Amino acid sequence: MSKTPPTLEILPLPGIPEVGANDDLAALILAAAKRANTTLSDGHLVVCQKVVSKAEGRIVALADVEPSDEARRIAEEDDKDPRHIEVVLRESKRIVRRGHGVLISETQHGFVCANAGVDLSNAPGEDVAVLLPEDCDASAAQLRDALVSAGAGPLAVIVSDTFGRPWREGLVDVAIGCAGMAPITDHRGGQDLSGRELQVTTTATADQLAAAAGLLMHKDAGIPVVWIRGQKLEGDGRVADTLRDPQADLFR
Amino acid sequence: MSKTPPTLEILPLPGIPEVGANDDLAALILAAAKRANTTLSDGHLVVCQKVVSKAEGRIVALADVEPSDEARRIAEEDDKDPRHIEVVLRESKRIVRRGHGVLISETQHGFVCANAGVDLSNAPGEDVAVLLPEDCDASAAQLRDALVSAGAGPLAVIVSDTFGRPWREGLVDVAIGCAGMAPITDHRGGQDLSGRELQVTTTATADQLAAAAGLLMHKDAGIPVVWIRGQKLEGDGRVADTLRDPQADLFR
Repeated sequence: MSKTPPTLEILPLPGIPEVGANDDLAALILAAAKRANTTLSDGHLVVCQKVVSKAEGRIVALADVEPSDEARRIAEEDDKDPRHIEVVLRESKRIVRRGHGVLISETQHGFVCANAGVDLSNAPGEDVAVLLPEDCDASAAQLRDALVSAGAGPLAVIVSDTFGRPWREGLVDVAIGCAGMAPITDHRGGQDLSGRELQVTTTATADQLAAAAGLLMHKDAGIPVVWIRGQKLEGDGRVADTLRDPQADLFR
Repeated sequence: MSKTPPTLEILPLPGIPEVGANDDLAALILAAAKRANTTLSDGHLVVCQKVVSKAEGRIVALADVEPSDEARRIAEEDDKDPRHIEVVLRESKRIVRRGHGVLISETQHGFVCANAGVDLSNAPGEDVAVLLPEDCDASAAQLRDALVSAGAGPLAVIVSDTFGRPWREGLVDVAIGCAGMAPITDHRGGQDLSGRELQVTTTATADQLAAAAGLLMHKDAGIPVVWIRGQKLEGDGRVADTLRDPQADLFR
């Protein structure tokens, strides 16, 4: 049995301004941490995908988008903006399901989510779509490197997004990229408290941290960055490597 | 825009002993809280399903189980104990998917999860299966009532379990029952920071709290009960009412 885990603290880092392309996100986060009297050391930083994407310029002006026939057809059936659907289709490897006005696709990264993660809300204008980062683990690693270069750390960085799930209403935050931690903690081979060998015991730690941070991040709170203290920094790995092999997935 | 949310604290309540049928779970939790110098007031208590089920006597001795032909067939194909599979089938409304040695079923409550939530690990003997509570929201309400009667509160209670997900490896903790809170927070009709009407904005708050608590609850930690401070107590509702209508579900 491991010893009692310490209390976790989930701290909001308020005051991050509207982020634009090429803004220095690390500097904005360090300034927010300083205002919150929080030292970014020995903890996990969870950053909402939207600000990462905006800093990376992953934005498409809908005025520049020419919808394909397929996008027009879907948009008409689902009462959506055909330019939005066009961007969604471009970001998708394939459509996994469509119905009830919802389009679930597999993104180029392999995430299965609504609208390929392409969002119109909270964008800096009326007519832009915000795309997921091209490589979310690389985004996390880049941000982590910049923070460490500026004197922060040791720390892990998680890029989170808000996804729906099958079977259950309501959205939860999940990790779409991480750096400086193992996204999954493997308890296999251990024993449970009665000495029985543990069965299925791989915890999606990065997702649990993203969900915890999500409690402070809901869209009208204006808190895109959260600091988590108390969770041990462990291992290394990429979220991309924790997406289930489609061959082993029962719900593709 | 709402004001900055407060820091959340996720506190382990260690020292809960092995729980048996008809044990007074509320008394055990209050004693653990006292030892941890934690007052169970103005917060959310997350309790692992296993201890709730055990206190409710939701345990089946495998020696008493006569497997059906179907259970024997599945057990042989998947290299499982046929008595375990028999219990799983009894707890299932139907099998949703089966493959790669995994059985995903819809439980009598409507949860979609592996093995109908029937677990062999951490049971008080080698040969018992622990079932989910019969009505997980009622279990949460009963525990909450008992705690309030003993002087605790105001508080919400969440009963959590560890579920797998499609598409992503690793397990996360979700709420299977709750009392004293709205399991889903509805931000619809609000505006985002740029004034655009919010789109899909129902947050599964009970699931996010369960996931946060799960960071301290992993099976070899011996922490089945976690106290969360800082999250506003809001609303009321049952997890059972937040399971997606099968007619509207794209992954049944």
